[in-house]
Amino acid sequence: MEAELINTATGILSPDLLRKINAYWRAANYLSVGQLYLRENPLLKEPLKLSHVKKMLLGHWGTTPGQNFIYVHLNRIIKEYDLDMFYIAGPGHGGPALVGNTYLEGTYSEIYPDISQDEDGLRKLFTQFSYPGGIPSHVSPDCPGSIHEGGELGYSLSHAFGAAFDNPELIISCIIGDGEAETGPLATAWHSNKFLNPVTDGAVLPILHLNGYKIANPTILARIPHKELKKLLKGYGWKPYFVEGDNPELMHHIMAEVMDEVVKEIQQIRNDGRSKGVTKRPRWPMIVLKSPKGWTGPKEVDGYKIEGTFRAHQIPLQVDREHPQHLRVLEEWMKSYKPEELFTEVGKLVPELAALAPKGERRMGANPHTNGGKLLRDLVIPNFRNYAVETHTPGSVKASDTNQMGIFLRDIVKHNQEQRNFRIFGPDEILSNRLNAVFEETDRQWESGSRVNDEFLALEGSAVEMLSEHQCEGWLEGYLLTGRHGLFTSYEAFIHIVDSMFNQHAKWLKVSARIPWRTKIASLNYLLASHVWQQAHNGDTHQDPGFIDHVVNKKASIVRVYLPPDANCLLSVTDHCLRSRHYVNVIIAGKYLAPQWLNMEDAIAHCTRGISIWKWASTYHGTNPDVVMASCGDVPTLESLAAVSILKEFLPELNVRVVNVVDLMKLESNTEHPHGLTDEEFDRYFTADKPIIFAFHGYPKLVHTLTYRRTNHVNMHVHGYNEEGTITTFFDNLVANDLDRFHLVIDVVNRLSHLGEKGQAVKLMLEEKLVKHSAYIIKNGEDLPEIRNWKWKKN
Amino acid sequence: MEAELINTATGILSPDLLRKINAYWRAANYLSVGQLYLRENPLLKEPLKLSHVKKMLLGHWGTTPGQNFIYVHLNRIIKEYDLDMFYIAGPGHGGPALVGNTYLEGTYSEIYPDISQDEDGLRKLFTQFSYPGGIPSHVSPDCPGSIHEGGELGYSLSHAFGAAFDNPELIISCIIGDGEAETGPLATAWHSNKFLNPVTDGAVLPILHLNGYKIANPTILARIPHKELKKLLKGYGWKPYFVEGDNPELMHHIMAEVMDEVVKEIQQIRNDGRSKGVTKRPRWPMIVLKSPKGWTGPKEVDGYKIEGTFRAHQIPLQVDREHPQHLRVLEEWMKSYKPEELFTEVGKLVPELAALAPKGERRMGANPHTNGGKLLRDLVIPNFRNYAVETHTPGSVKASDTNQMGIFLRDIVKHNQEQRNFRIFGPDEILSNRLNAVFEETDRQWESGSRVNDEFLALEGSAVEMLSEHQCEGWLEGYLLTGRHGLFTSYEAFIHIVDSMFNQHAKWLKVSARIPWRTKIASLNYLLASHVWQQAHNGDTHQDPGFIDHVVNKKASIVRVYLPPDANCLLSVTDHCLRSRHYVNVIIAGKYLAPQWLNMEDAIAHCTRGISIWKWASTYHGTNPDVVMASCGDVPTLESLAAVSILKEFLPELNVRVVNVVDLMKLESNTEHPHGLTDEEFDRYFTADKPIIFAFHGYPKLVHTLTYRRTNHVNMHVHGYNEEGTITTFFDNLVANDLDRFHLVIDVVNRLSHLGEKGQAVKLMLEEKLVKHSAYIIKNGEDLPEIRNWKWKKN
Repeated sequence: MEAELINTATGILSPDLLRKINAYWRAANYLSVGQLYLRENPLLKEPLKLSHVKKMLLGHWGTTPGQNFIYVHLNRIIKEYDLDMFYIAGPGHGGPALVGNTYLEGTYSEIYPDISQDEDGLRKLFTQFSYPGGIPSHVSPDCPGSIHEGGELGYSLSHAFGAAFDNPELIISCIIGDGEAETGPLATAWHSNKFLNPVTDGAVLPILHLNGYKIANPTILARIPHKELKKLLKGYGWKPYFVEGDNPELMHHIMAEVMDEVVKEIQQIRNDGRSKGVTKRPRWPMIVLKSPKGWTGPKEVDGYKIEGTFRAHQIPLQVDREHPQHLRVLEEWMKSYKPEELFTEVGKLVPELAALAPKGERRMGANPHTNGGKLLRDLVIPNFRNYAVETHTPGSVKASDTNQMGIFLRDIVKHNQEQRNFRIFGPDEILSNRLNAVFEETDRQWESGSRVNDEFLALEGSAVEMLSEHQCEGWLEGYLLTGRHGLFTSYEAFIHIVDSMFNQHAKWLKVSARIPWRTKIASLNYLLASHVWQQAHNGDTHQDPGFIDHVVNKKASIVRVYLPPDANCLLSVTDHCLRSRHYVNVIIAGKYLAPQWLNMEDAIAHCTRGISIWKWASTYHGTNPDVVMASCGDVPTLESLAAVSILKEFLPELNVRVVNVVDLMKLESNTEHPHGLTDEEFDRYFTADKPIIFAFHGYPKLVHTLTYRRTNHVNMHVHGYNEEGTITTFFDNLVANDLDRFHLVIDVVNRLSHLGEKGQAVKLMLEEKLVKHSAYIIKNGEDLPEIRNWKWKKN
Repeated sequence: MEAELINTATGILSPDLLRKINAYWRAANYLSVGQLYLRENPLLKEPLKLSHVKKMLLGHWGTTPGQNFIYVHLNRIIKEYDLDMFYIAGPGHGGPALVGNTYLEGTYSEIYPDISQDEDGLRKLFTQFSYPGGIPSHVSPDCPGSIHEGGELGYSLSHAFGAAFDNPELIISCIIGDGEAETGPLATAWHSNKFLNPVTDGAVLPILHLNGYKIANPTILARIPHKELKKLLKGYGWKPYFVEGDNPELMHHIMAEVMDEVVKEIQQIRNDGRSKGVTKRPRWPMIVLKSPKGWTGPKEVDGYKIEGTFRAHQIPLQVDREHPQHLRVLEEWMKSYKPEELFTEVGKLVPELAALAPKGERRMGANPHTNGGKLLRDLVIPNFRNYAVETHTPGSVKASDTNQMGIFLRDIVKHNQEQRNFRIFGPDEILSNRLNAVFEETDRQWESGSRVNDEFLALEGSAVEMLSEHQCEGWLEGYLLTGRHGLFTSYEAFIHIVDSMFNQHAKWLKVSARIPWRTKIASLNYLLASHVWQQAHNGDTHQDPGFIDHVVNKKASIVRVYLPPDANCLLSVTDHCLRSRHYVNVIIAGKYLAPQWLNMEDAIAHCTRGISIWKWASTYHGTNPDVVMASCGDVPTLESLAAVSILKEFLPELNVRVVNVVDLMKLESNTEHPHGLTDEEFDRYFTADKPIIFAFHGYPKLVHTLTYRRTNHVNMHVHGYNEEGTITTFFDNLVANDLDRFHLVIDVVNRLSHLGEKGQAVKLMLEEKLVKHSAYIIKNGEDLPEIRNWKWKKN
């Protein structure tokens, strides 16, 4: 069959099945309208009165009947072909369709026995929708079968592909709204088909639902000529099938035929790949469903056309004290679905319709992949201690932190090859972030053809790279939500590209943690290497440490931020994060060769505490130091220790305590974050009254935000990124932001007036050093030798 | 001519012109390699030594020769057809090409006389590149002719279209890297052609540069079959011309022929539209240039293939103490361009080549559109006082703030129709944000066909809407950077989608403000309506006030944040923002009917100060109140005043001062932000020792971040968004976050122990009220009548 507009229905549905499918669709539509409007009289057994109607009418009708149409047809093929399938609702506010359908198939009442399959249950089902104390209008975590809420548009297809990776028997039906299709993330997500392996991965069946309108505007894909759309989708590498029209009977026939066809094609692609091997990238089938917005709803209200226009987007018909005349219109509309034929006297779906739905876990609302924690298997993680950098004396050895982590990750990949539940996603930065070792064990999965000079590409692999942070984030989210583990590695500055996606995922985690039947999933782990202080060759555009500021605005029960100062700490933190559940973990680590500070046992102790006094670096071990030199982040730690070296040399009488923070949330109060220190603990680290010179990886404001209520906050002097710096030397970027060793020492002198003339002399010396450094780099194009070759000296 | 791969060169270039064009290209390539490597001996007059080579080799070769190739061919058609054209370099790190070409054409030396057109200038040009104290490797603001730095990838095509709007004679050549083409924003930006009017707008000539590789991976668009790529681009609505190969001579011929063809087509489309009117959307031409990565560079180094592989991405050849043997390879490579034929003895481009470049402002580096402030004309802004909501008594009138702003915007549109330099961009939210009145004067520009039930669509209009925040932001940035004015209106929660784009624009403004020859441009104005407190019908996914947290991390000289409490304040703020220059202004305002507080004169005074004591609402006018009830944001202001009402009624003896903040940055210290209050001023508003109950629009942390150093910060009790709430009533969302009037009063009681039993009684009453409210909304689906109908009572 040619992937083309099908104009005639060849009638593969028997008249009886057609009748039943249409009736099931009517039932779903009836439930959708009921959810939008009613709080009483759910079966319309008595004449509809205003008191039966909700006072606040909230929700979206436009997308709903089309999604109901799709759902019943998917049900048919699931049964017909015994498919392992679930449903992603891309269009915003698709809630009524999915809630209604999972109710019809029985999953809803199993999970929420109170919403029973009877008249009282129907009443509650209707009332709770978009109602105080009830459920949202999206396909929120409350809705069984959902891994994708879809309040913010753009990520449905990425989520679907994430779910498909390493789930070879699964098919994800991904409904994409034509509004959503205009977003950037969705526009590039079509290319996901270049990364899907038909042997080891599942399939995604995109169903582009063209209903023509967004809130108040037409949509692009619904207005471009048919031929152009077809070219576009074929150009994206898909084989599109078109189902267009508004006559329900004809549409059922066409849809059924197309559904049969696409299932057969998916199975053919799978079978070919699995029996003969993959020889070329498959052209996976997809469906374009063009149906009227608000299909089967009011055609016209008060002289305005509704069905098939943008006016069907939300509530197509106001029914309230100001519009009492609409009560009858609503009643007629609902009765047009003939509820008396669909539900028994007690309000249960009639048996012949109930029989249409798949059974047990084949029901899309009950598919276990959609409650990923149920399928989650622990990662097999080798002992991270075995990957330690030998560090007998702090600072004596140099190593690349992420390179070391890469070796650990390599073996995690290796040990989980069999259960295939671990993936690393990145926008072409796995190598640039120095996780090279991973490619000793696996490759980057890529179905688009290899050439002789390519490296680490294969049809199958545990790494996936595309130059789209949106895709990496969306894929990983889909992968995690369906019960697997993973990591997203990226540049720190550009992770802001997914700020908004992070928001939505954190919200999902927050809400789903409150739902008893939802199981916990693996944490979303970010490794942000190539961070703000490692952009000497990229400059200003690549410098931004603000993602952590963004992250800490979300619920304390969900977010964790780690800034390991060296490789052994990074290993310990990585192990912890990969074992954790239902968090977002942000790890910021360096990739360049840098001094290593802690041996593995000390690193574990340090990371377990999250914050430590580094006695080996301090010049004083009592309770009353003159100054606290604190640091958080690999580069700030280096500078802070270099500053301590200067203090030791030139102001040896000074009592210096060195504090290092690896778990940023330690700084916040224990009343705000579960990791937070108590005020007493905080004071023990930072004193109650001594200057704290805090070298921080990110924006100084963040440390103040986290610590403003601490006893000694007034003495907290934070050095961090101040939006200065460009392409220059590594050290010069620090100088531009006053985060270098010299500025740190100068700040110590400034805060300790008792250092007197001796302090001023040191300050003068360092100011001269800064001038000298500046002249040197202009002349030589590199940092002063004393900085390049600096080494920590033991006490 | 069919838009197809051209296999044969028909030879439209005379042998002499071909020779010269190729020589010019060699000159540009020579300069590019020189910038990457050399600091001395720029003309290779003496044998190359290691001391001539920079110590840190930073920069990107891969994209450069292809861009040089494009530039010289654009130069030819600019001269040939007298085109008004400039160049956007999408591929990251395209700096060497653009710096080199603007040097060759003379603009660089005109702007930077020190970088003269002689040997010494060449030496400086080479040395400064990616060098301390020099210039970045991107097309940063330092580079003449640039409006697009391109450090973060994805926005070139949106910028180009933004520049094209309302510039009917302009053509923007937009070079898109095949890496960048994988990003979401770029993938949807191809659809911009559905919004461009050939009569009133300029043209964009996309040149998709397929060099095959990103950092370490192949690119999708270079690996899909030719036919598929062609379908994709045609499906996007373009007419693609393919220029493929690696033989320079042949490629020059093909490129020249294609360039002629596309210019003619653009002119034809323009002429047709302008003479006959627009009857259908044009299929604009574009070019696909497929050339080897690192073209003309080293073929192979140490046994690895370089040219045409990912290894050509950055520095293809290490030349340093560890690789002395590469010195000769570099020398041979550079000499392969035959510099002695290209530059005179003194180091000036030979006259016959210099003659190839356009003259004066036709040079792409000198195109005035690329230094937009030069073309910036003030907006004609009617007196905003004329749009005032009549407000004799505070709280007596209700209005929709944004609706009122819409009327003002309508007339701004009207008054600037002639100079066509004002546009409003939005992701289908102009209506939902209640700026309806705008459509009395203009329409949404849309070239994709209208139907009978569409509204406010036309081939030409000052509003542009596409469901992509990336596009809206990119278009607006391009529009502003080329010297016009505009506004982006969106949902508050989803503006995080462009966090990263905001970052890059703020960085551009920061850097360009430091460059003397760069002129100031109009501010980027955000109107965030449909904010966190107006999501009762959208719920959790639509609730996020964190964009302002993100914004205030950027330079204080660039960012401004306004939260007008009512319509008159919104009008005053809007007027101020639209007149301002070189800022990012964030305005957060409500759209629903809400009480109006200030008459216009008071509003102006309030907005001018940015913060005021509202005497009319305070119960005490001395210097020593018992409590300060502060608010910032429209909804918090309402709740704070309602709380004051309760205090007046039940605790009338309490001395209450009411403070309202409209300019958020007033809270920060004047030492941190130019708008900041001094500590003395701050204390005069907030007292030195009294409790401050601060009702804040956003995350409470932000107020603490801004005020932690203030005298009375310890008494600052901030109520704001705590990531709670879902679909429920308007008021219930406030309750969920303790931002409602009852919680505010309870907090007053908690902070003032001297209120004793009377205070406790009030607290108890309010706690009961909260319980009652909760029960009422579950039962009735709407807020208590006393809340819905609440009105401010005069003292």
